[in-house]
Amino acid sequence: MSVIQDLIAALGPGAVMTGNNVGARHRSDASLTGDTLPKAVLRPDSVDSLAEALRLCHRHGQSVVPQGGMTGLAGGANPRPDDIALSLERLTGIEEIDVQSGTMTVLAGTPLETAQQAARDAGFLLPIDLGARGSCQIGGVLSTNAGGIRVIRYGQTRDNVLGLEAVLADGTVLTSLNKAIKNNTGYDLRQLFIGSEGTLGVITRAVLRLRPLPVGRQTALCALQSYEDATRLLKSAQLELPGLSAFEIMWEDYFRFNEQAVGLRHFSETYPFIVIIETEGEEPDDDGLQDFLSARLDDGLILDALIAQSEKDRLGFWAVREGLEMDRLLPNLVNLDVSMAIGRLGTFAEDCGAALLARFPQAHVSFFGHVGDGNLHIAVSVPEANEADIGEISRIAYGFVRTYYGSISAEHGIGTLKRPYLSYSRSEAELELMRSIKAALDPKGILNPGKVI
Amino acid sequence: MSVIQDLIAALGPGAVMTGNNVGARHRSDASLTGDTLPKAVLRPDSVDSLAEALRLCHRHGQSVVPQGGMTGLAGGANPRPDDIALSLERLTGIEEIDVQSGTMTVLAGTPLETAQQAARDAGFLLPIDLGARGSCQIGGVLSTNAGGIRVIRYGQTRDNVLGLEAVLADGTVLTSLNKAIKNNTGYDLRQLFIGSEGTLGVITRAVLRLRPLPVGRQTALCALQSYEDATRLLKSAQLELPGLSAFEIMWEDYFRFNEQAVGLRHFSETYPFIVIIETEGEEPDDDGLQDFLSARLDDGLILDALIAQSEKDRLGFWAVREGLEMDRLLPNLVNLDVSMAIGRLGTFAEDCGAALLARFPQAHVSFFGHVGDGNLHIAVSVPEANEADIGEISRIAYGFVRTYYGSISAEHGIGTLKRPYLSYSRSEAELELMRSIKAALDPKGILNPGKVI
Repeated sequence: MSVIQDLIAALGPGAVMTGNNVGARHRSDASLTGDTLPKAVLRPDSVDSLAEALRLCHRHGQSVVPQGGMTGLAGGANPRPDDIALSLERLTGIEEIDVQSGTMTVLAGTPLETAQQAARDAGFLLPIDLGARGSCQIGGVLSTNAGGIRVIRYGQTRDNVLGLEAVLADGTVLTSLNKAIKNNTGYDLRQLFIGSEGTLGVITRAVLRLRPLPVGRQTALCALQSYEDATRLLKSAQLELPGLSAFEIMWEDYFRFNEQAVGLRHFSETYPFIVIIETEGEEPDDDGLQDFLSARLDDGLILDALIAQSEKDRLGFWAVREGLEMDRLLPNLVNLDVSMAIGRLGTFAEDCGAALLARFPQAHVSFFGHVGDGNLHIAVSVPEANEADIGEISRIAYGFVRTYYGSISAEHGIGTLKRPYLSYSRSEAELELMRSIKAALDPKGILNPGKVI
Repeated sequence: MSVIQDLIAALGPGAVMTGNNVGARHRSDASLTGDTLPKAVLRPDSVDSLAEALRLCHRHGQSVVPQGGMTGLAGGANPRPDDIALSLERLTGIEEIDVQSGTMTVLAGTPLETAQQAARDAGFLLPIDLGARGSCQIGGVLSTNAGGIRVIRYGQTRDNVLGLEAVLADGTVLTSLNKAIKNNTGYDLRQLFIGSEGTLGVITRAVLRLRPLPVGRQTALCALQSYEDATRLLKSAQLELPGLSAFEIMWEDYFRFNEQAVGLRHFSETYPFIVIIETEGEEPDDDGLQDFLSARLDDGLILDALIAQSEKDRLGFWAVREGLEMDRLLPNLVNLDVSMAIGRLGTFAEDCGAALLARFPQAHVSFFGHVGDGNLHIAVSVPEANEADIGEISRIAYGFVRTYYGSISAEHGIGTLKRPYLSYSRSEAELELMRSIKAALDPKGILNPGKVI
């Protein structure tokens, strides 16, 4: 029997879509770079059924592309014509919230926002958060170690996963639903599956760490003279604001462009750098952030500051940072996502920006990012750019990343789009070790082939 | 040539100790269970020289036991007679403190306390901390993912390692001295070496995350009626005390025994549970902890509380928790280190304690631990216990750990001592995957054989 026939026999026809039943959404993640449909889509509704599907694919040497909410930006979930897509969308549900341990056990297909809401309903914060929360799924978030603005307070996604269940290439189910912060019993197998983009196993369940739900929030916009001043402000904020939950930087070009795009004007003057500071756990009448900013104005570290007086103010600050209009207003927008030592980001941005403008004088180049995590985003738009130009933009920027000993992917992952550049951030010895691990866990190479390594 | 001759030729005679030159300290870690000297001790003074040593050992199929400060409690650094010990003690030094990134780059043989002091001198906190800080080394701390009381605030050791250099079994040097919090470029190779107790590679350098140095500290002792109340207090402390840096629980027997041992009496009454709460970042005249405790006394969650009014008070609280006299006063003391869902620790302690006393009516059994991390220590002393009795104590306790889906080693690691019990916390599928990874990274099995798996 063919692999499709075997799968239909094992999973039932309702769980195996082929031909015209394969929806267009299985073609590409949010990078919109995928251009082919998979030959079938599997939609198992239980871990056992998913494991059986992988056993059969393994026996047939059939390649499998795991698909979550398809919100990735690196092409990591894009299929090739002969791949079978494995959708997690029916493997949903919050199985338990343990209020004493502060943990949530959740199936991988559950949308992040559903899990966040369930945590809130139980009086907790699920600290994993990112812009695509409405459609991304827990399994996809974990398999890409997706980041976001709260990493500065609560750590990376991988730091918030206490237990994990994953299915290996041959269908072996690996269940380790640990709930304690500390567990030193042999190799930390969780970390192999988190961030490996479905190339070592398919995540099916997780135990996530919850935190107490903060009761209030304060948000400020600060104007600064230099990048160095921003790093000084960061250090003093980390020391003096225990509830610090976001510290986002925007270079002048980025801030001005996006203020205009959303029709807002916050300061009467223009400033070289703007920082958003947000704290959680402070009631609206708390003076913590106010006092902190007054002191920084007095000592000259910041040039001006605004504290949001309403939710409308706050959303206005964030609208500029989120820059949602950029894609519409700027043609051929390339959004790069790099990281390096915090102290180097300032000169990196100068050098990289100058080189991009020297090569593409018409380009719009702007910088913003999560400075506390060493994570910088670079938005580059070159009118009438062709595919070769877009490749060259990446090569120019990643060349500086290599020079600055940085990472070509801080939070978006490697997928297919950054695979050609992986050696800019990883040595041959590291790549060789990744290949050994891949060969040990997936000797037939059926899991998400062509991705990452 | 023999492996020893090859090593002397490559490293020089000063870096290869044999025969009577092998000191007794290379026999055993702090568990005092090692009873043989290794056939040689290597003391390379550079990463290149260490890599050359491993290349030669690999070629000869010579087993190697990495040794740090020898403060482990699981026998993970104990040699067998035919092993060669690889001491990191000459690979010391802090190579850089990057004040803008808040990172320290350090060689693996550096004592933890030296690194902590260097961080403080630069105005930072190195948040990794444990009791053996004076003699343990960074490499050993990382290779065991050693825990401690500050995990509740700053996360596990593995969460505080940004970059790592390790040498593989065949002498390949894997250097990834990343400094950014976020880095999603392929597999997280760091995590393979952290906590794998030297069985997959030898850690030689690390980039550690630093935090702003807290300016003040407040410490309190709280009396509670029940374990459930302690978990409620934990949740409210995590919400309301942003500087919470320790939350340690002691069961009545533990507290009373250790108060007597150090000659202190804190409360006029006896209480079923005592909790130490410590906050950092509060000046002595701050009212945060005072206000929190007053509110908890008002709502009846705590029965009594004392706030340290001096460093002497504070050290008195901690002296009871540290229980340093137990080893001297209680014969054959067995100290177990388990973890599980926080909500289950209370009944676990009841069940496990009752079963131990049923089997050993003369036993002194007491419980204490890092409740915020789900981590419980069990101190068991049976007068005139023989080796079989000590094995039975572990089997009884680990049997309950298995029933409660817990971990047999929260922070001490597996080493040799807990290896027979690893299957109490890990499934056969997990053990099989660990063996695959071991085979992929160390096909000849020369790195710390007989440890962990």
